[in-house]
Amino acid sequence: MTTWEKWLEAEAGQREAAGLTRRLRAWAADDATIDLAGNDYLGLARDPEVRRAAADAALRWGSSASASRLVTGTFVLHEELELELADYLGQPAALVLSTGYHANLAVVTALADRTTRVLSDAHIHASLVDAVRLSRARLSVVPHSDVDAVHAGLAAAAEAGERAMVLVESVYSVLGDAAPLVELAALCEQYDALLVVDEAHGVGVHGPGLVATLGLAGLPHVVVTATLSKSLGAQGGAMLGSSALREHLVNRARPFIFDTGLAPAPTAGALAALRAIRARPELGATVRTRVASLADILGVVAPAGAVLSVPMSSPQAAVAAQAAALEAGLRVGCFRPPSVPDGISRLRITVTAGVPEDDWARAVEVLVDLVKEHQ
Amino acid sequence: MTTWEKWLEAEAGQREAAGLTRRLRAWAADDATIDLAGNDYLGLARDPEVRRAAADAALRWGSSASASRLVTGTFVLHEELELELADYLGQPAALVLSTGYHANLAVVTALADRTTRVLSDAHIHASLVDAVRLSRARLSVVPHSDVDAVHAGLAAAAEAGERAMVLVESVYSVLGDAAPLVELAALCEQYDALLVVDEAHGVGVHGPGLVATLGLAGLPHVVVTATLSKSLGAQGGAMLGSSALREHLVNRARPFIFDTGLAPAPTAGALAALRAIRARPELGATVRTRVASLADILGVVAPAGAVLSVPMSSPQAAVAAQAAALEAGLRVGCFRPPSVPDGISRLRITVTAGVPEDDWARAVEVLVDLVKEHQ
Ligand SMILES: Cc1ncc(COP(=O)(O)O)c(C=O)c1O
Ligand SMILES: Cc1ncc(COP(=O)(O)O)c(C=O)c1O
Repeated sequence: MTTWEKWLEAEAGQREAAGLTRRLRAWAADDATIDLAGNDYLGLARDPEVRRAAADAALRWGSSASASRLVTGTFVLHEELELELADYLGQPAALVLSTGYHANLAVVTALADRTTRVLSDAHIHASLVDAVRLSRARLSVVPHSDVDAVHAGLAAAAEAGERAMVLVESVYSVLGDAAPLVELAALCEQYDALLVVDEAHGVGVHGPGLVATLGLAGLPHVVVTATLSKSLGAQGGAMLGSSALREHLVNRARPFIFDTGLAPAPTAGALAALRAIRARPELGATVRTRVASLADILGVVAPAGAVLSVPMSSPQAAVAAQAAALEAGLRVGCFRPPSVPDGISRLRITVTAGVPEDDWARAVEVLVDLVKEHQ
Repeated sequence: MTTWEKWLEAEAGQREAAGLTRRLRAWAADDATIDLAGNDYLGLARDPEVRRAAADAALRWGSSASASRLVTGTFVLHEELELELADYLGQPAALVLSTGYHANLAVVTALADRTTRVLSDAHIHASLVDAVRLSRARLSVVPHSDVDAVHAGLAAAAEAGERAMVLVESVYSVLGDAAPLVELAALCEQYDALLVVDEAHGVGVHGPGLVATLGLAGLPHVVVTATLSKSLGAQGGAMLGSSALREHLVNRARPFIFDTGLAPAPTAGALAALRAIRARPELGATVRTRVASLADILGVVAPAGAVLSVPMSSPQAAVAAQAAALEAGLRVGCFRPPSVPDGISRLRITVTAGVPEDDWARAVEVLVDLVKEHQ
């Protein structure tokens, strides 16, 4: 065995011993279970019109962008999506990238360098954590949604003459709570800093997202990143902000420049989903109503987004409840240490508008029984 | 203006003054020019069967994977592609990621940490450069394709007791030359190090890639990364190596774990392209013949891959030749300082099997005249 093989074996052994080994489970196209674990919040990834738009784009434009957006990999289709995204989110400009992860890497690394101060919320997504590391910026992790800590950090950065950036999610993926965006935007304005808001879980569920809903879209000190892979039912990511920032990313963001453009099918899929969201505001409303009602029934705090986090008594109870849900035809998620910030195991239930009313009612019944039994 | 806006303006001003501003140009679906600038080496992104496979997958599976591969975002379709990719490339296992960039980030960051020595070729792709930075490994950049320098670096790492990794491309994207893979693999075996080979430009043009062609596939000290966005005519990336490594990435690679799975359409597109490559070995052969012949006619060294790099007398001459090519219906690329390693401006011509014989003959005539006129 090589040194590397021995190392892999030791790592695998440690995972196995700790009961932390994760394995992929492959789903069939005709699987009949209801997916309450993914991020298809509005059900648009399986919407007939969205599917058809994606399929048509593959037929019409081919199955690949075949080059970097800067070479010959930009299609009129990309620009159409960018214009409509910017319009809906109330921003001057948008730039589409091949994943939401790329969008976060691109924005942070193109703006921050060794001289920049980044104040990053303790709960931000792995892609933003990696982005800061890659940028080599001066990082301060601030306690979750602690406005005073951000205030102190910005004051210190201003004192030190550092350009400063604050990184948050509009709706956090793990606990589903909303960031104090109005306060944070005011602080960033006051201290001449930049607020970067990841709207991965905000767009769609809250129409154009929380930034737009709160009247913060288009401000020069607020930049948005988004993913096309959740409510927008496709794949890819986007930056939304000023035209100057868009031009900067086009010229400087390595995860944009040195990457093949987003393929036509997901580009068109996201565009069709965006149009569906605009045409059918009841989609977002349905999710919000279902979330509030289910949270109420289960006795948990209603989240700001579409994901309900239900504390369970133990990791074993969480796993057992997840297995029982699958028995009953429902796929739900399960969070256990070490992937929870506070050590509490949880069922993670994605509420989606993609399930018809009667199926949803049945799912709720099953969930209520399950949680009672295992909690 | 905010500090950030002023900074963006200053950066844009510098780019503009240096003549380095780049802008996106959007192509229409019915654009009739011949693309000799992208990476659709085998023409499979526009192949009717590949398009249809991508379209069918969007209809059948939906337009998104809608979740991380580890949650509910793994479809039987992903596993099918992984099994066939591994089989064709002669490797025990494969793992598909959402971009080639993600594949490189995943492999390096999941394997290397602060204690690892990475010897990275001076010409490796931006995604591998970023991957090393993100991993925080101990980096030594070795002169391009300098086997002695790698030897010395591995000896020093062994001396220091460091786990060591060597990063190369099988066919380099900028100059189109091949890495000395046989020598490097022997050195890695000798020094118990890991050779990571990015086959982005090798797979397809050289059938299963240079690693397989040279009999290096399946060795425990050789790992391959690949992209699905070039010869495989789609989007996405892959790691090819041992099952233990695949399991390690599934459990540890953040750009895999915290990212939505590859959408169905590009997954199926890549699978159809893979099958076309296997069924039609003449595709790769056509590219290789066309490259050799065009290089001969233009009097440049034939590259190992599908991209011909034609030195021009000045950046202005390169730009003028590119514009004249477009006039004549051909999209070609153009490399100018600072994006060339040696300061020499070049036309970058992608040879592709996707152009019918008579169009190709006409394109060659145009290119020969152009180069004569502007070189
Ligand atoms: C908050 C957040 N940002 C970014 C991403 C990455 O987006 P994508 O999966 O499109 O790469 C995700 C999830 O995947 C996320 O939850
Ligand atoms: C050598 C090499 N590796 C990786 C990549 C990234 O692949 P992708 O565009 O699929 O992200 C590219 C080009 O884009 C490349 O040329």
